[in-house]
Amino acid sequence: MDNKSPELYTCLSPALLHLYDISNSTVVIIDILRATSTITTTLNNGAKAIIPVDSVAECIRIGKQIAAITAGERDGQIAEGLQYGNSPFEYPREFISGKTLVLTTTNGTKLLHMALDKGAKEIIIGSFCNLDTVCDYLIKKGKPVLLACAAWKDKVNIEDTLFAGAVVQKVKEYFTVNCDASGLAETMYADARGDMLNFMKTKNASHYKRLTGYGLIKDIEFCLTPNTANILPVYTDGKLIKKTSFT
Amino acid sequence: MDNKSPELYTCLSPALLHLYDISNSTVVIIDILRATSTITTTLNNGAKAIIPVDSVAECIRIGKQIAAITAGERDGQIAEGLQYGNSPFEYPREFISGKTLVLTTTNGTKLLHMALDKGAKEIIIGSFCNLDTVCDYLIKKGKPVLLACAAWKDKVNIEDTLFAGAVVQKVKEYFTVNCDASGLAETMYADARGDMLNFMKTKNASHYKRLTGYGLIKDIEFCLTPNTANILPVYTDGKLIKKTSFT
Repeated sequence: MDNKSPELYTCLSPALLHLYDISNSTVVIIDILRATSTITTTLNNGAKAIIPVDSVAECIRIGKQIAAITAGERDGQIAEGLQYGNSPFEYPREFISGKTLVLTTTNGTKLLHMALDKGAKEIIIGSFCNLDTVCDYLIKKGKPVLLACAAWKDKVNIEDTLFAGAVVQKVKEYFTVNCDASGLAETMYADARGDMLNFMKTKNASHYKRLTGYGLIKDIEFCLTPNTANILPVYTDGKLIKKTSFT
Repeated sequence: MDNKSPELYTCLSPALLHLYDISNSTVVIIDILRATSTITTTLNNGAKAIIPVDSVAECIRIGKQIAAITAGERDGQIAEGLQYGNSPFEYPREFISGKTLVLTTTNGTKLLHMALDKGAKEIIIGSFCNLDTVCDYLIKKGKPVLLACAAWKDKVNIEDTLFAGAVVQKVKEYFTVNCDASGLAETMYADARGDMLNFMKTKNASHYKRLTGYGLIKDIEFCLTPNTANILPVYTDGKLIKKTSFT
């Protein structure tokens, strides 16, 4: 390990974000089930932009203002007043190409705005859908990284930690990793990677239970499948867009 | 798993403690390197009581008031004005038997006081030194449990998570575990248990580096050894004492 290589940290919950100086960091927002998986898939399917907002009311307001599609769920149902839900399957290319989506989610959006308020140098979106692209980008960029897990109402969750572990495993030789949470995530990923769906099931993961309770096991399977949409969503001027140049 | 069995949660950092209702719970304070290991060892060696305090100044004040031994470190050195450090090796039976120790530590003491302020039903001390006794007690008691990791300045650490994982692995069949952090801890422990010292070394654990930097690898080895002091320290009336009856 080269001591001059940039630092990489993993933050397992938004409630721990204040512990990290991110003013010079690329922050990877991780909300595997399902916000960041859906964002990545939707942009890969040709959406022009995604505007992440905190509340259903704001989603409705902005949706009207710019005549965009509104989306968001509460307790596994499309929220009242919105048009679509949080599933990546709702946004195929023939529907979403060229359109703008206003999306409200509970944990991922909150974390993104927290990272913004805390002065993150750059905010990108990570999911298994774009795992390799995220890793390649972080390595090429060569700047400090915070892998930021959205968790569930601030409680550490398995799926976001697994993705952080996957990134740590793939990029660690290019970074200085003085971070126990990264080691922990990497260990769990090494254990789970052969069958992540089954791992979540046997570990009684809270989100596994929540989504399968809503009949959404196909969503979970999709969100744990690596490299189905290798693009890089980046946050700029209030919107998430597909980064077209990596330089 | 019996749905009527009491709930068990793992809290990986004091900064996440507010997420858990502990008003009916036994809270296990975990600060493996080295506060809870030293507390357990010292009480097992016959100390009358240990008074945990937040600051060096308070440690000196109370030490004088009750003519007790004062102990605490800052940055790996005995803190100015105190008599002893945080190592379990400093408190053999021939020295500590019958005496009271006033102890200040950074992370463990803070967490203990937070749990107290939050109205914990009962506070006990967990370390690998008393692993089996802690597990037996939690099972016999049959009440809700929070495994509370002291972490390092609120950052999740490997050694406290390992201990939480060891407890989860041993007691889970008696509890309802709807908690991703517990699954994560258990997975890491399963991976590490064959050689926890080497696991900490290969994962570049921050505390491993800190303590070996101070020449304290023997302390780490000792603190990772299970069942060297199978007693149960319990917090009562401002003091930690050895619980003599388990009923």
